[in-house]
Amino acid sequence: MTDSALDLENGRVELGHGGGGRAMARLVDELFRAHLDNPFLAEGNDFGAFDVPGGRMVMSTDGHVIQPLFFPGGDIGSLAVHGTINDVSMAGARPLYLALGLVLEEGLPLRDLAAVVESVGRAARAAGVPVVTGDTKVVERGKADGLYITTTGVGLVPPGVEVGGANARPGDAVVLSGPIGEHGVAVLSRREGLGFESDVVSDSAPLHGLVSRMVEAVPELRCLRDPTRGGVAAALNEIAQQSGVGMLLRESAIPVRAPVRGACELLGLDPLHVANEGRLVAVCPPGRVDALLATMQTHPLGRDAVRIGEMVHDDHGFVELETAYGGRHLVDWLSGEALPRIC
Amino acid sequence: MTDSALDLENGRVELGHGGGGRAMARLVDELFRAHLDNPFLAEGNDFGAFDVPGGRMVMSTDGHVIQPLFFPGGDIGSLAVHGTINDVSMAGARPLYLALGLVLEEGLPLRDLAAVVESVGRAARAAGVPVVTGDTKVVERGKADGLYITTTGVGLVPPGVEVGGANARPGDAVVLSGPIGEHGVAVLSRREGLGFESDVVSDSAPLHGLVSRMVEAVPELRCLRDPTRGGVAAALNEIAQQSGVGMLLRESAIPVRAPVRGACELLGLDPLHVANEGRLVAVCPPGRVDALLATMQTHPLGRDAVRIGEMVHDDHGFVELETAYGGRHLVDWLSGEALPRIC
Repeated sequence: MTDSALDLENGRVELGHGGGGRAMARLVDELFRAHLDNPFLAEGNDFGAFDVPGGRMVMSTDGHVIQPLFFPGGDIGSLAVHGTINDVSMAGARPLYLALGLVLEEGLPLRDLAAVVESVGRAARAAGVPVVTGDTKVVERGKADGLYITTTGVGLVPPGVEVGGANARPGDAVVLSGPIGEHGVAVLSRREGLGFESDVVSDSAPLHGLVSRMVEAVPELRCLRDPTRGGVAAALNEIAQQSGVGMLLRESAIPVRAPVRGACELLGLDPLHVANEGRLVAVCPPGRVDALLATMQTHPLGRDAVRIGEMVHDDHGFVELETAYGGRHLVDWLSGEALPRIC
Repeated sequence: MTDSALDLENGRVELGHGGGGRAMARLVDELFRAHLDNPFLAEGNDFGAFDVPGGRMVMSTDGHVIQPLFFPGGDIGSLAVHGTINDVSMAGARPLYLALGLVLEEGLPLRDLAAVVESVGRAARAAGVPVVTGDTKVVERGKADGLYITTTGVGLVPPGVEVGGANARPGDAVVLSGPIGEHGVAVLSRREGLGFESDVVSDSAPLHGLVSRMVEAVPELRCLRDPTRGGVAAALNEIAQQSGVGMLLRESAIPVRAPVRGACELLGLDPLHVANEGRLVAVCPPGRVDALLATMQTHPLGRDAVRIGEMVHDDHGFVELETAYGGRHLVDWLSGEALPRIC
């Protein structure tokens, strides 16, 4: 079977597809080169080659083990593209190129693999960030869960931009690009055994266009973070810890759409702990926050951008939330395992 | 348990270690930052940032699913570093930085994880190629096999160097850097159920130092390839196919050490199909092969470098082997699944 053309209708991934021989060459040609078609991959080397101008470069890598593979608003393929584009963008950088590493489980239907690879291609083309190199491994039945994808991206930081988690200072404004929790709730709504349904769609999206406008309008931007695993709570705690500064948020300012709020109540989750894949938090000097919000609101992915709080003096780097009734409580990291394999 | 320090003696990977919360932050701090310690990781961002001069850059990614995790001459950690350094080097490039993506199975002993991460750190330091960013995901028990590692590397191609699989021409010489099959045999010797023992040690090694000397001495070098999965047979067939040129090899010139030859006979394998992780094949103009061999032999990893054949006119791009008795046969790709999870 491995010597004939791929049977995308009824075929399945076999161990031979990862063996470095003829079957693998066929998988690469008929699936990867076909769907990811670009001049870099067409060269057929084990590397992608490209010219870069000198400057500040960033590199980021992200494994994707999401379950289920397909969910409302995306799939593991589009997510793997968006996730890494976003990690590179959080440096204030312009993402340039992606590398794609797949671990496939023997027995995975080839039509599922084809759907995922097609989705990778579509997302990469839409974002203008090509996959220039890749690798495929196959493990035995029961040694993976369909497939895992590790994407790595490189990008260039525009001159003058210095974004990093350690740059926040007391008085800085904290901004959120839109309503939270939609990716996590969308994925959980397709998990078996959780006993809840929902029409929520993942917010999965590439944020580099939005970030590009932000750093152009406000080059003084201090921090950017995409609140994925661990949610907004983790992203803000990381910034506070790295910068050695506290943070005070207004609960009423944090946008959570009604279906997400309802699902979180049902599941016993705090929306602040639920993963997002198309949102960002930003910290900027207080005098620049109006300009930043105005710019963000001109972009479809920043239309609902709001100021949610500010950085405050606090050597412990605590993140606190002021409730609608004037009380305060700590916004802690998620400590347990409430949401495994959400991305 | 997840809120206390890591128990590296008796602890195991838990789902919470991948949840983006406090347990994950602890894993990153106590294990990854500790063993991979460098200023890039210390910044604590989701990306690594570095300055590059302008020029031709390459990027390569490689998943590692080897089983067992520890084998004579290395482990999945050192292999993941060497494998990606080598892929970048095969562009004639100088590897600069690595990204490390891990998928961990719930229940993996933390001491095994620590041993692997320590090995990654050791190999990266020895090679002078730091891990500047990383990512960890955890999947449920039975959804991985201990751990999988995807490493991605970037590097710069020295000006004037143009190495690629499509550059071979009729008359060019084909060179091999040393004896073949040692990685594959070393790994198989530790597989249960194969019923054979062996003292063979993997050749796993970073080839960038050797390559650097080669491209400096012979900038006209046409192709480089590391014969990993699929062995020398696959690497040479890839070059022949990409270049649209045939290849004629002399069987007697291809070095295979006695214990490897013996193990291959026992297992019914052709050494040409067995994976290597510290060898390379090179193609260069015939007038430069003596200079190339002389340079390679000055490096510990090229001490046994030999010319094994030459490129010949052949529109089919066939690779042929001339036996000791003057007969010829085709060197084909491995078509089946003889050697799953060898890297």
